[in-house]
Amino acid sequence: MPTIVVDVMPKAELLDPQGKAVTGALNRLSSSRESGSGISEVRIGKRFELTVEGPVTEELRERVREIAADILSNSVIEDVVNIDFGDDAS
Amino acid sequence: MPTIVVDVMPKAELLDPQGKAVTGALNRLSSSRESGSGISEVRIGKRFELTVEGPVTEELRERVREIAADILSNSVIEDVVNIDFGDDAS
Repeated sequence: MPTIVVDVMPKAELLDPQGKAVTGALNRLSSSRESGSGISEVRIGKRFELTVEGPVTEELRERVREIAADILSNSVIEDVVNIDFGDDAS
Repeated sequence: MPTIVVDVMPKAELLDPQGKAVTGALNRLSSSRESGSGISEVRIGKRFELTVEGPVTEELRERVREIAADILSNSVIEDVVNIDFGDDAS
């Protein structure tokens, strides 16, 4: 059965405390290296893998876009940055 | 500055209660349609966007692989399913 991937990230202008915490941890853990971790920022979002029954029709694509915008993400604080319908475009 | 994306998902054999909850909600919300939501399973993972300073060198790639396995994921319950180093492979 085909799998559709929906990627949701916090809006760019929003503070991402979890991301900041991971960035700090990476730099502390890499303090032995003179260049630090080499990573200046980390942002953390959600990745949804939807297993669908049957072929990925245009109607299903439209429904997944709706579901991504309305249910899988909170449009006030998040953006749907990517929907990957996989190879099976039949 | 280049952005590297790391995707982490719960191991396939693990129960994903959040995913089950979303699957149920999708089917309840789509009960008006005779085919339901058309989505048989939802699994929820994390998506990390790492902003790196400077070019994506082989050394940095190796370091990001280490970071992904050791820090960004819990190898007992999660798998790193994808690391996208972006176009800038210089």
